[in-house]
Amino acid sequence: MKEAIFPAQWNQALASLPPSGIRNMLKLASTMDNAIHLSIGQPDFPTPHFIIEASIRALNDGKTRYTVDSGLPELLEVLAKFYGDWYGRNLGPENLLVTCGASEALFLAITAVAVPGSEVVVLEPSFINYQPLVEFAGARAVPIVTTASGGYQPDVEEVIAAFGSATSAIILNSPGNPTGVVIEPERMKAIVSEAVNRGITVISDEVYDRITLDGQDRPGVMIWTDDLDHIISISSVSKTYSMPGYRVGWLISSRENVEKLRRYHIYSSTVNNTSAQWAALAAFQGDQNCVAEMVGQYTRRRNRVVELLKHIPDFQSYRPDGAFYVMPSLPAGSNASAIAEQLLHDTGVCVVPGATFGQSCANAVRISFANSMENIETAFERMTDWFAQR
Amino acid sequence: MKEAIFPAQWNQALASLPPSGIRNMLKLASTMDNAIHLSIGQPDFPTPHFIIEASIRALNDGKTRYTVDSGLPELLEVLAKFYGDWYGRNLGPENLLVTCGASEALFLAITAVAVPGSEVVVLEPSFINYQPLVEFAGARAVPIVTTASGGYQPDVEEVIAAFGSATSAIILNSPGNPTGVVIEPERMKAIVSEAVNRGITVISDEVYDRITLDGQDRPGVMIWTDDLDHIISISSVSKTYSMPGYRVGWLISSRENVEKLRRYHIYSSTVNNTSAQWAALAAFQGDQNCVAEMVGQYTRRRNRVVELLKHIPDFQSYRPDGAFYVMPSLPAGSNASAIAEQLLHDTGVCVVPGATFGQSCANAVRISFANSMENIETAFERMTDWFAQR
Repeated sequence: MKEAIFPAQWNQALASLPPSGIRNMLKLASTMDNAIHLSIGQPDFPTPHFIIEASIRALNDGKTRYTVDSGLPELLEVLAKFYGDWYGRNLGPENLLVTCGASEALFLAITAVAVPGSEVVVLEPSFINYQPLVEFAGARAVPIVTTASGGYQPDVEEVIAAFGSATSAIILNSPGNPTGVVIEPERMKAIVSEAVNRGITVISDEVYDRITLDGQDRPGVMIWTDDLDHIISISSVSKTYSMPGYRVGWLISSRENVEKLRRYHIYSSTVNNTSAQWAALAAFQGDQNCVAEMVGQYTRRRNRVVELLKHIPDFQSYRPDGAFYVMPSLPAGSNASAIAEQLLHDTGVCVVPGATFGQSCANAVRISFANSMENIETAFERMTDWFAQR
Repeated sequence: MKEAIFPAQWNQALASLPPSGIRNMLKLASTMDNAIHLSIGQPDFPTPHFIIEASIRALNDGKTRYTVDSGLPELLEVLAKFYGDWYGRNLGPENLLVTCGASEALFLAITAVAVPGSEVVVLEPSFINYQPLVEFAGARAVPIVTTASGGYQPDVEEVIAAFGSATSAIILNSPGNPTGVVIEPERMKAIVSEAVNRGITVISDEVYDRITLDGQDRPGVMIWTDDLDHIISISSVSKTYSMPGYRVGWLISSRENVEKLRRYHIYSSTVNNTSAQWAALAAFQGDQNCVAEMVGQYTRRRNRVVELLKHIPDFQSYRPDGAFYVMPSLPAGSNASAIAEQLLHDTGVCVVPGATFGQSCANAVRISFANSMENIETAFERMTDWFAQR
């Protein structure tokens, strides 16, 4: 007879990690001939040629063995110099850890810092991974709601009021996914200073740090404090250089924090792909015009999308300053998930329902402009007609 | 005044993840001109040319965007077919998840299955990641000691006696790192059958599955049970095809388990490098002679190392059947860490002290033959002299 076993289930913490909220929609879209995806979370531009060439060169040179677990030393040096110069501070390779995309960096940082039983402040709408990871770690996510009508700028007093003796961290994301918000410098300064003063760690997802659309420079948190012990700044090459499939991300923090996270990283994935790290190095060393060109395109599309949204009166919108998203809201109480599904079904236009990014934004949709101007125009024609006829 | 903060420390579970036990030795070795590394955990052969070509082709074709999060569909198909044919069972892409090396697969599997408060049986010496990850997950590692004198074969009765109502999993690793043991089929069958019968999950690290040195075929666990619900089989291209820097691994399990681990994976690293997955696909589709050739070399080196070890009477050794390691032991009570450091200091020969792999093997050293026959000969000349003069 089979014995009764105690651990019949797996680790229950996994229940905190939900499946993707748009899998059903993508499935439906994949059966449609006329689908247009305004749902895309990666750049639509080809990777610049000189970057691809660099990875090919590395492969031809036989660079297929492990690098140092914290990252290719040449890449660590270049990243330290780049971010040190950008933010006017002293960074060395010991402040950096290369990870499997920003995803792994977020995983390591959140699950390390979100002490079980503690609280983590999260601005909502929030990127899909934050709140599940906080809960997976055994901490509690404390969402601070921001709205389309306020351009998704956080209310500083509200954020600071949420800091308490149990707060271990705050997660920031500027420029942000899904809203494209670039948090205003004064707000950023107030939030970061207060957090760091209180010994609260700021985990800052800065994967869109180079994609600001109105000339804002230095959107990251490192400019607002000297205390790297309470800052973990995360970015990657994926969005900046349109190389998401290379999976090269990193985090920047104090030497001591990096040492701890490096140890963790050895267990979570050990080390990143070697030729991809050479490509990332080339990206930073090469002509940065490729970035300016892509940002120029995103800016033109953003301008057009902001105009087009004005023709759909159901939407409350605003002007996003970064990344390649806008997240207009429908009237309070609208079920944007049902609406997005119906929109897709009727018109082939795929947007992402707000509920994916938090309960407070269940009446909004994320529209990505990582698609050609032609597709954007066609999609908005269909959407405008569809909303007009509802 | 600064408020007293409750979560002053990070997640204490991180304390379960120790730093590398040989960092100091590698540091010392890096300052020596005459160092010979018998400490290496990756193949010393170049990656076969046709595999490198495949990744270059993918890059030239602009394959630099994300693949499906569970893995490149073509790769999942080929892996399902390869392992299905090899183990005579029905596998489909839904039984597979591609991860950032076997490391990520191990991380996901162990931390998902090792329920907090449960027990996980581990054969010792064990690969460095297993016991820390079990403890990181909040479970307790129950080591079953194997010895050089017994060729590191596990005592089946002892293993089964360790299974209890609190046992959530057993971790197997055959061919094994650090010992090179290939667990005998009858033993494997008994352990796997008993575990699965009791609802205990078998996490099987099979990264050396294609590196068996005496014609043994099918060292993996999938041949011994139909119940994939209690099997997670993990492997990678790193050792088989000498492509460690590509970081492509995978796990095989039941559809339901893979679905859960896939969700977890989306949060831990999201998706693997794209061109690396095309390279892995090419590796499986190409001429498999490259594997046979490398295995032939490992076999010749193993034969020679076994001979050479006989000339160092301090060592109790055996004939490893797989991977590229042997782990002879020194007399009981010997401090192999101190001896290895002194050996390195005096001769430049770097081996890995047994304590890295468990307390029970603190009197042993791991010798890797992922190095040329010439280096192996020179290293053993030095070692033989050194031990003779002690």
